[in-house]
Amino acid sequence: MHKVIFDTDPGVDDAMALLFLHHHKDIDLIGVTTVFGNARIEVTTRNALFLKREWKIDAPVVQGAGETFIPHRVTHEPPKHIHGADGLGNIGVPETVDIEPDPRPAAQFIIDMVRKYPGEVTLVAVGRMTNLANALKQDPEIVSLVRQVVIMGGAFEVPGNVTPAAEANIHGDPEAADIVATATWPVVWIGLDVTMQTVMTRTQLKEIADAAGRRGKLLFDLSQFYIDFYEGLVDDGMVVHDSCACAYVVAPELFATRSGTVRVVCGGLADGKTIQKPDGRGFGPSDWDNLPSQKIAVGINDKAVLKLIHDTIVSVKED
Amino acid sequence: MHKVIFDTDPGVDDAMALLFLHHHKDIDLIGVTTVFGNARIEVTTRNALFLKREWKIDAPVVQGAGETFIPHRVTHEPPKHIHGADGLGNIGVPETVDIEPDPRPAAQFIIDMVRKYPGEVTLVAVGRMTNLANALKQDPEIVSLVRQVVIMGGAFEVPGNVTPAAEANIHGDPEAADIVATATWPVVWIGLDVTMQTVMTRTQLKEIADAAGRRGKLLFDLSQFYIDFYEGLVDDGMVVHDSCACAYVVAPELFATRSGTVRVVCGGLADGKTIQKPDGRGFGPSDWDNLPSQKIAVGINDKAVLKLIHDTIVSVKED
Repeated sequence: MHKVIFDTDPGVDDAMALLFLHHHKDIDLIGVTTVFGNARIEVTTRNALFLKREWKIDAPVVQGAGETFIPHRVTHEPPKHIHGADGLGNIGVPETVDIEPDPRPAAQFIIDMVRKYPGEVTLVAVGRMTNLANALKQDPEIVSLVRQVVIMGGAFEVPGNVTPAAEANIHGDPEAADIVATATWPVVWIGLDVTMQTVMTRTQLKEIADAAGRRGKLLFDLSQFYIDFYEGLVDDGMVVHDSCACAYVVAPELFATRSGTVRVVCGGLADGKTIQKPDGRGFGPSDWDNLPSQKIAVGINDKAVLKLIHDTIVSVKED
Repeated sequence: MHKVIFDTDPGVDDAMALLFLHHHKDIDLIGVTTVFGNARIEVTTRNALFLKREWKIDAPVVQGAGETFIPHRVTHEPPKHIHGADGLGNIGVPETVDIEPDPRPAAQFIIDMVRKYPGEVTLVAVGRMTNLANALKQDPEIVSLVRQVVIMGGAFEVPGNVTPAAEANIHGDPEAADIVATATWPVVWIGLDVTMQTVMTRTQLKEIADAAGRRGKLLFDLSQFYIDFYEGLVDDGMVVHDSCACAYVVAPELFATRSGTVRVVCGGLADGKTIQKPDGRGFGPSDWDNLPSQKIAVGINDKAVLKLIHDTIVSVKED
């Protein structure tokens, strides 16, 4: 069993990933921590609570950071053109949901869970890395207690998506990402290098919707706006960024990885760019020296990942 | 015919590229401008004069920049472990060569030639971009008079070679490279994305040496130290970075390119990193906006390029 805390900013592809984690038999989802990004923090938290209620998820929702690790850093408007004004594809999420989040801040919740289950917790982080960086700042010892950190983020050897250099999750809080990247815990980066080729077609999504009952219907509905955005960028369908990171947790064999130290550019033209120094490659002294080696995904069996997502989500028929 | 000015810092692979340009029937080599990089400027100029004498090259050698475009920028020691203390593989180049360089600075020579042959001159730049940036600063109108600029430099979607982010020629003077990248002249970037896979084996080099007489013998001798450096990085042989850029001039069909605006990171972790915004990819407002679209090489027919280099160099048997 993988005890997973899902750190997320729902977000359309976040919603699919959440349903994947909820339904996978080898995953024990112990918490959903929210972060600003695809929408403001109040909205991503509300959306997480909404999905928890609609999909009958036991794990608590815990509100996290509403701004970058370094306060007052220049930030960016939420991408309403991708995830909708409500962050879930403009399906008309209610203003408020009649359940409460856990009262702790997300960083504290992460620390508490990691200390409660030493060596067992996997952090799957698919938004800005702010909550993880805050947790590290508050309790640096957790680095030796976390099982692994799986990140959806970064663009290593492909163009970015929010600038030509950078991927949105990392660009949204580069300092936090660099802290997470260089801490001595095991990190796996699932970046645009592999997620951009992992496209679920409208037909495949419809099949899931039809087979998964009411839960699938909601997933289908909230994804349509996002699919419309991606038209022209990819062939008819949706890029399932966040679900790729979840798939890695249970099926790492579907990914090819490369080891090496990862740093995140903070500031300037390449703000938020992720750069790995591959292990075994000699350079002069550099800013990558004496830091832990981490894995980045450089290849993916996209068909198998899509099948895994399908099979997992439809494995639980109805509420 | 391609009128070519070869801007170079010989340098071992520079030497091969120079012999290629000298021997190719469709190239009219009208000048060899030197720049600091693989060695100090006095050494690269001396080496160019030495090769001019040994290989009976008519074109004048013109000394260029000995420091970065922005004076006193932090620079780096010449890579003596790659090109040798003498810049030509420690073959014992004489301290002085009994011919003089053209008296003009390289930037002035470039301007003079471009104005003398409007629309005809191709600049093949395989060292730091300092001379080209200086020429642009001195006479901005040359942008509309140059036929094209072909650069060996940059690492777009592969790791760098001098840092995990950057390729040596661009890292050595990022501000100059950004000026050259964003000027409104046609630029083609032949970077590590394609040059690292273009490896001439020792055997292939020996065949050239045997077939090209005394000139080939010198090329073979000066390349041995460089090949020794690359052992372990590539399979037995030498990466012919600079010759790839020369091959592009006469055989662009051997390259796959992608169009888009190119910027160079100046300063910070990614100092000297080259980043292209591919044409047709939508991003928000960015530092890549309203700048000319340029080509970067994303694929190479390496076998055909190696054959072209072989055939060209051996096409002139002896002095």
